This record gives sequence, structure tokens and C-alpha cells, in this order.
Amino acid sequence: MIKIAILGSTGSIGTQTLDIVRKNKDLQVLGLAAGRNISMLEEQIREFSPRLAAVGDEEKAAELRERVKDTDCKVVGGMDGLLELAAMEGTQILVTAIVGMIGIRPTIEGIKAGKDIALANKETLVTAGHIIMPLAEQYGVRILPVDSEHSAIFQALNGEEHKTIDKLLITASGGPFRGRKTEDLRDIQVEDALKHPNWAMGQKITIDSATLVNKGLEVMEAKWLFGVDLDQIQVVVQPQSVIHSMIRFTDGSVMAQLGTPDMRLPIQYALYGGTRRYLDGERLDFAKLGSITFENPDMETFKGLPLAMKASRTGGSMPTVFNAANEKAVALFLQKKIAFLDIYRIIEDAMESHKVIPAPTVEEILNIEQEIYNRIESRW
Amino acid sequence: MIKIAILGSTGSIGTQTLDIVRKNKDLQVLGLAAGRNISMLEEQIREFSPRLAAVGDEEKAAELRERVKDTDCKVVGGMDGLLELAAMEGTQILVTAIVGMIGIRPTIEGIKAGKDIALANKETLVTAGHIIMPLAEQYGVRILPVDSEHSAIFQALNGEEHKTIDKLLITASGGPFRGRKTEDLRDIQVEDALKHPNWAMGQKITIDSATLVNKGLEVMEAKWLFGVDLDQIQVVVQPQSVIHSMIRFTDGSVMAQLGTPDMRLPIQYALYGGTRRYLDGERLDFAKLGSITFENPDMETFKGLPLAMKASRTGGSMPTVFNAANEKAVALFLQKKIAFLDIYRIIEDAMESHKVIPAPTVEEILNIEQEIYNRIESRW
Repeated sequence: MIKIAILGSTGSIGTQTLDIVRKNKDLQVLGLAAGRNISMLEEQIREFSPRLAAVGDEEKAAELRERVKDTDCKVVGGMDGLLELAAMEGTQILVTAIVGMIGIRPTIEGIKAGKDIALANKETLVTAGHIIMPLAEQYGVRILPVDSEHSAIFQALNGEEHKTIDKLLITASGGPFRGRKTEDLRDIQVEDALKHPNWAMGQKITIDSATLVNKGLEVMEAKWLFGVDLDQIQVVVQPQSVIHSMIRFTDGSVMAQLGTPDMRLPIQYALYGGTRRYLDGERLDFAKLGSITFENPDMETFKGLPLAMKASRTGGSMPTVFNAANEKAVALFLQKKIAFLDIYRIIEDAMESHKVIPAPTVEEILNIEQEIYNRIESRW
Repeated sequence: MIKIAILGSTGSIGTQTLDIVRKNKDLQVLGLAAGRNISMLEEQIREFSPRLAAVGDEEKAAELRERVKDTDCKVVGGMDGLLELAAMEGTQILVTAIVGMIGIRPTIEGIKAGKDIALANKETLVTAGHIIMPLAEQYGVRILPVDSEHSAIFQALNGEEHKTIDKLLITASGGPFRGRKTEDLRDIQVEDALKHPNWAMGQKITIDSATLVNKGLEVMEAKWLFGVDLDQIQVVVQPQSVIHSMIRFTDGSVMAQLGTPDMRLPIQYALYGGTRRYLDGERLDFAKLGSITFENPDMETFKGLPLAMKASRTGGSMPTVFNAANEKAVALFLQKKIAFLDIYRIIEDAMESHKVIPAPTVEEILNIEQEIYNRIESRW
């Protein structure tokens, strides 16, 4: 029996994780955590009977406690609650599917408690990779990627020696505006940007996909996750989103992982620690697919990627600045307060005026995030 | 130090194997064998200083013995010589790159002497898979595929559990006549058939590629090599020959191996027992490649594939009949004695009039081959 806790159980990755639990009798949920959506969390508690539930919002936690007092589930609230859930006894895997830098502390707590981390939270490694990866090694826990690109690389790396990695080839759909030039992006509306060609995702990540910031974050994350140099990572645009990523090895051989766009696959693969189980769902039909096409990313138009690479190369606190500025900028764009291209401008401004801290602590990372937020808010 | 012997050192696979030996100081050649080309074999003996050389042709063996008497290399001849080489002391790997059913006996001898087999000889598994695979298991030796398709599957299987294989997706270029229909193939000339779109290969295999007999043989071989049912093998036409083959697993994930067309990669991968070493050569450039396309094989026009599947499904001695009839038919086509489509007719006729032996011995396999040869020769 594999026992898990899920941080962010009411989101897209969280609910799909529960789908996988539903289908596999050897998976059991001991803990569930959500930010505010206690209605869904209540349903999940009633279905999966976890021992512990955590709610980020303290008031909502109190409300949920009242609602589920007929069950055996203990309800905790706030950051302390999330930390308690991350370190709870009896679980082997902590799924961190919570969005934002709020995921960092519970992830660290989980690692210190010896839990393998099924990581779906991008910010954790982007901003605190220099803390997380050595800590995971120290505590002998595995960081199991849940993102489809990182899972593809994880799958391609199965059975291989790390030293034979030549390049990680991270694929990108290119987003909804692939092929357009900067001048075509000036008047992009929120509605246009929310149409992702291949994956149904949340609003923030869909905008990040349109700006290629998302791909930039994945590159940063891959660098930590697979312990490679930034120069060993290349982004290949592959609009059909059929190849989820590839590794080129030192013998020139390229191993690629392909599939239909189904996040349940990387989730299941991570939950079983990098081994396969049957999974239902549509199979790739190559003749029906017809073709897979490739192109280089347009780094001049879609600055999300080169800016991310610059932030990663600078290192220290710069990735935090990149990420926080982007978060705020996307929020402003979704509120229709800024234009699409202003997202890049806001990130660039924030990066240019930042004085880098070489190896920031979690405290410093969270402070920098807040500073960047405040600064952007005061200006827009 | 990995010590090897090469059966068929003067052919395409043999010389490329020696290229790999040349580049890797931890590979050493102890034995070399060729059919008749003693000039090249002499050069190889002088460069690689093997202990033993075998020549299929007895007279040529005597001639070579004279030529290299200034060296420490012992020269042996005939089938006995090939068998001596296969079982020679000190080698860990026997590369069987000899063409035709002549490879079966030395392969068996090598297995019995505890050698891992780097298998580039198709006929061995196609006709005697029911003997070879159990024998390899009994003697605890590995059958390491050298063919690019089987190597791709071998690579994709690395680190995976056999029971999670759902389907082997063997890719095919479709040959030079892809897209044509039966009526377009009536007047095909030898010269047309010898133009393979992606790989430079010998004449026989190039014709086999045009008829899809080669793909059929690969399917038969894959069935034995990977211990799957014929229904678990699907041929996908992928004209660019960039994806060398794929596995679809039970979770829907597809692992593909890609690369430039360079046989040295599967050879090296086999010599190192399924691990990677640096290999020079051109790397895949996806943006330059532009696209990979897929289609289903045209089984009505290119009967080589369905006939092979039928032979494999029937089993026993039928694959031997398929293979022997094809060999003879291709020779007749290359001699311009028959038309392209007659190749299919000759195979079909041979299969229809054959009375199947369920589990033929090597003796029976070789007898059936001879019978088929004689029968076709007497008719054409």
C-alpha cells in the first residue's frame, strides 16, 4: 500500500491525482489540503476518508471542521496546518500540487519528514532549487516530477546513467501565438491568450504558455531536477504536443516519451515511484496523427524563454524575481490592466533593478517575492 | 576489457563493428570470420591482431593461412572453422553479422559456449527462434539486437518491466515504392528497387525493404527477441527513418528511440551490453528535420509484410519457407530473371505447398531451406 498526502487536492492536478487513487487499490490517501475550496474538500474527505485535512485559509478551516465533525478527519488550518499535513505520519509520498511559492515550506517539511515528493509545484524548484535538491539528497528522498515535460525526461532517463546525458530536449507547443511577431502581439486580448491549442489548464498557466514563461520555468526546473547545466537544455517547439520531451545521450541516441495529453499518466508514474501500471484512456494513433512538426522557439518575440534563461544563468534570487514579477504581471493582464507585451516589460524591469542575493534562504525568497509584488502593485 | 569475435567481419555490420572497436580502447577483437573476402580479412588481421580467423570457403582459408603466416593468427576454414570461432576461449560476445541461415549453427555454438550474442543475422531468430531463445535462457546468455529497429526497442525497454509492454511499434520507411499500387509495381526494374530512401545497405536487404519482406522478418524476429505475441507488434510507416522504433506501454506512454541513420549506434549499444558510451557522428537537428510523418503500411500492395505475419502465425517451419523462398526470389529478381511482383508469387507458392513441421530442428530447417531453393531453381 502506498500512502499519500496531497497538497492542493482541489486543483487540476489534485483532482486527477484522486482519479488515479480511485483506480488503484494499492494507493491510499491519508491527507488532503486545499486553499479555500472547502465544499470540494468536504466531498473528497467523505469519499477518501483521510486522517487529516488542511485548509490554507484559517476561517475556512474552522468552517470545514464544523462540517465534517461526523467523520474521523482532523481539520487543521493556515501554514501550520499545511506543514502538519506535509510531515504527517504514515505517508510515503507528498504530492505538492499547490500553486505558488506557498508550496516551498511544506515541501521542505515533507522532505525533512522523509517523504518522497511528487512535485507539481513549479515555484519550489525555480526559486529554491538550491535548497530543495541538496536537502532531498541529505534526507534520501526522491523528487518525482509530475509535469508532463519533466516526467517525459524522467521516463527517458529510466535505466540510463546520468553521465550519458548530452542534452535535455524540452518540447513546447509554442502557445496560441506561435508564428506571430511582436507587432502582432500588441493588441492581444485576454480571451485570445486563454485559448491553449492542446491542453486544458488554469488561466495563469495558459497565459504563461502564451508568453513562453511557462517553458522558461520548466527549463529552470529541469536544470535542478536533473542536475544539468543550462547549456544542456534546449527547447524544441513541437506544436502537436505529442512528444512530451526527449533526452539526447552522448552516443547521439534520442529517447522520447510520447502520449496523448493526459496528466494522469505523469501523476500515476510519479505515485508509483517511476514504474508503470495500467492506465485507461485514449492511445496515440500514429497514422491518424499524420505528422509531428518541429521548429526552433522564436526567442525574439516570446521573451519569456530568454528572460527565464537569463534569470537562471544569473541564479541566486533572480529566478524568484522572474517568477514573482511574472505572477503579478499575469494577474494584471487577466484583470485587463496591462497589455500582453507589458508582461515582458514588467519582468525585465524587475530583473534589471534587482540586486542579486547569491543563495537566498526561504525567508529571503519569500521577502523578495513580497517586495516584487508590492513594487509592481504600486506602479500599476 | 570486452573481448569479442565477429562472424562476418568484412560485411557492412562487420566493418562498422571494427570501427567501434577502433574508437574504444576497452574493446578487443579475438576472432574474425568472413566468407570469401580474404584480402579485407588479411587487412583486418594485421590491424586488430586477432588470435583466430575463420573463412567459410576452405580454399580461401588455405590461401589466407599462407598470407598471414608471419602473424600469430591461426586460420581455420569451413563450417567447422566458424564453429571454432564462435566458441573460442576468452571472448564474451559473439557478433553474428553473417548473412543467411549459415549463421544459425555458429550462433548456437556461441550460446552453448556462454557467449552473449550481438545479433545482426535475421535468419537465426526468424527460422530458429524456438531453439535459440530457450537455449539462451538455459545458458544464461543475452541476445543483444544490432538491427536498428530492435535496438530501438531494446533501448526503450531499458529499465522497464516486460509485463508493462502493450505494443511494439516497429517503424518502416515504406521503401522506395511507398505510395505506389500493385499495378505500378509490375514493371519495376532492379535499378529502381535498389534505391533506398534513407539507408545505404546491401542489395538483398534493399530489395527486401522495397517488398516490405524485411519489415516482415523484423516483426518475426521481434516476436522472439522480446517474447511478445504477434498481435502485440504493429508496423508504423515513418518515411524519414528518424524514429527507429517505439514501445507503447500499458499506461499509454510511448517511448521512442530516434537518431540519424547510423548503424554504429546499435552496434556499440549491443557491444556494451545495453549501456551507452560516447559516439561521434551527426546529431539529429529537429528544427532542420522539420517533420516526422506517419502512415499505415499498405498491406495489399506490399505483401511481404502480411505474408511474413501469416508465416509467423503458422509458426514451426513456415518462417523458414518464407525466408528461403524470398532469398531465392530476390536472387532471381537481381539476376533479372523474374519481375518484382513475382517475388510475392514465389513466396506465396512456397508457403502454400509446404507441409508445416511444428518445431523443426536445425537439421530440418536447413533441409527445408535447401528443398525450397531446389524447388524454385527447378521452376525458374
